[in-house]
Amino acid sequence: MKLSNTPAQRYVLRIADAALILSQRNAEWCGHGPILEEDLALTNLALDHLGQARALLTLAGKLDGLDEDQLAMLRLEHQFLNPVLFELPHGAHGERDFAFTVLRNLAASVWFGLLWQRLLHSSDAELAAIAEKSAKECRYHLQHATDWTLRLGDGTEVSKAKMQAALERLWPYVGELFEADAIDAEAQASGLGPSWDSLQADWRAQMESVLTAATLQIPKDRPNAHRGRHGQHSEHLGHLLSELQYLQRAYPGGTW
Amino acid sequence: MKLSNTPAQRYVLRIADAALILSQRNAEWCGHGPILEEDLALTNLALDHLGQARALLTLAGKLDGLDEDQLAMLRLEHQFLNPVLFELPHGAHGERDFAFTVLRNLAASVWFGLLWQRLLHSSDAELAAIAEKSAKECRYHLQHATDWTLRLGDGTEVSKAKMQAALERLWPYVGELFEADAIDAEAQASGLGPSWDSLQADWRAQMESVLTAATLQIPKDRPNAHRGRHGQHSEHLGHLLSELQYLQRAYPGGTW
Repeated sequence: MKLSNTPAQRYVLRIADAALILSQRNAEWCGHGPILEEDLALTNLALDHLGQARALLTLAGKLDGLDEDQLAMLRLEHQFLNPVLFELPHGAHGERDFAFTVLRNLAASVWFGLLWQRLLHSSDAELAAIAEKSAKECRYHLQHATDWTLRLGDGTEVSKAKMQAALERLWPYVGELFEADAIDAEAQASGLGPSWDSLQADWRAQMESVLTAATLQIPKDRPNAHRGRHGQHSEHLGHLLSELQYLQRAYPGGTW
Repeated sequence: MKLSNTPAQRYVLRIADAALILSQRNAEWCGHGPILEEDLALTNLALDHLGQARALLTLAGKLDGLDEDQLAMLRLEHQFLNPVLFELPHGAHGERDFAFTVLRNLAASVWFGLLWQRLLHSSDAELAAIAEKSAKECRYHLQHATDWTLRLGDGTEVSKAKMQAALERLWPYVGELFEADAIDAEAQASGLGPSWDSLQADWRAQMESVLTAATLQIPKDRPNAHRGRHGQHSEHLGHLLSELQYLQRAYPGGTW
């Protein structure tokens, strides 16, 4: 599949893919939640992100006459532009680590929350409308992740240790959310949306407030080493896509 | 993909798929072995089974003018005829459980060993030749699985408990290896190969001998509830195939 790859298209695809890939990860909890209510909550959260991804992919595809399904199901790995953070498996060894799930959803919902707020004023009316709908959904996501972070971080010795370990695993990936580059600069200049690095200070302040209240230690920052936004992914994305795309790959053009 | 689905073709495909799917599972240890020697051993074992699968798929495909790659990469889930035992993940919760790996390889190598011995006398000269090569490889597989079963079953309290738990998880799936049906009856009558149920007594005796020496308790037998040999699979095969087939699905007809 050939894409025009204009800066505006790539700017929107980065957000679309962040939502799509995080949706796929959270959906892995469907039928496996630790309690029924949580199973429903994570599945609903995944559906919200999937809805956001659909709208954003539709917007990004217009330029090339491609629809949401073609972009989601037929792009190759290097054409996905989500930050690596969103493609990481929940556990380091194939297991579902609920602590990691909670903390990634916290990092993501703080970040999405700030992004949607800024996108309300996008020069692209369609993007602004998507942001308005998404901002409402995001408030619940943030509340949910915050509740669990406090409960488990400031919980038992075991739950605190699990949360701290998950935080150490997650932290090296958050830097990618705030790297400035030419695509961001152009979006900022044209009024399409904010340069992601302009969200960093607020993100950091909100994260510190929740993590500190949860008695968790914020890990040391390291220079960002990840380039998912440029299409360079971890070993995990290919496996995720093989599952996500299997049906359309096995039955090309298949419909209900 | 349309297959003739003659009894003889299905008989060969069942064995081919048992080898192919077990190969894919053992290959998941590649780069993850508990020690380097074991990493190499499991990878070599996977390669042996892959070689067997290639030869058998080539044989099975002749009738329809299909080659090994088309059969491995483009069949749909219900067209795979391996017993469910071979598609089970190593761990019950996404982890790699070495105890389960060892015990499945024990069950498989005892079974393959008996099967290859009988197939040496197949009325199909090509199948007999495959069996001759495979029987040699199988002797090493059996030795390897037996060694680990004794070492871990009759090992520490922890290793014994892990082996016993893995055995309980595995046992409900072994019955499918020995169900008689019309396809087997026809293979037996034509001299193509043995009815699988005729291997059961010897399989049982060999398994009991190793498991008892390993101080493990053989679980209670239950009526077989699995129909992988008829193309009805567990939830796990689809995920396995999505990984196995991804490249050919994403790049149809792609070659090196």
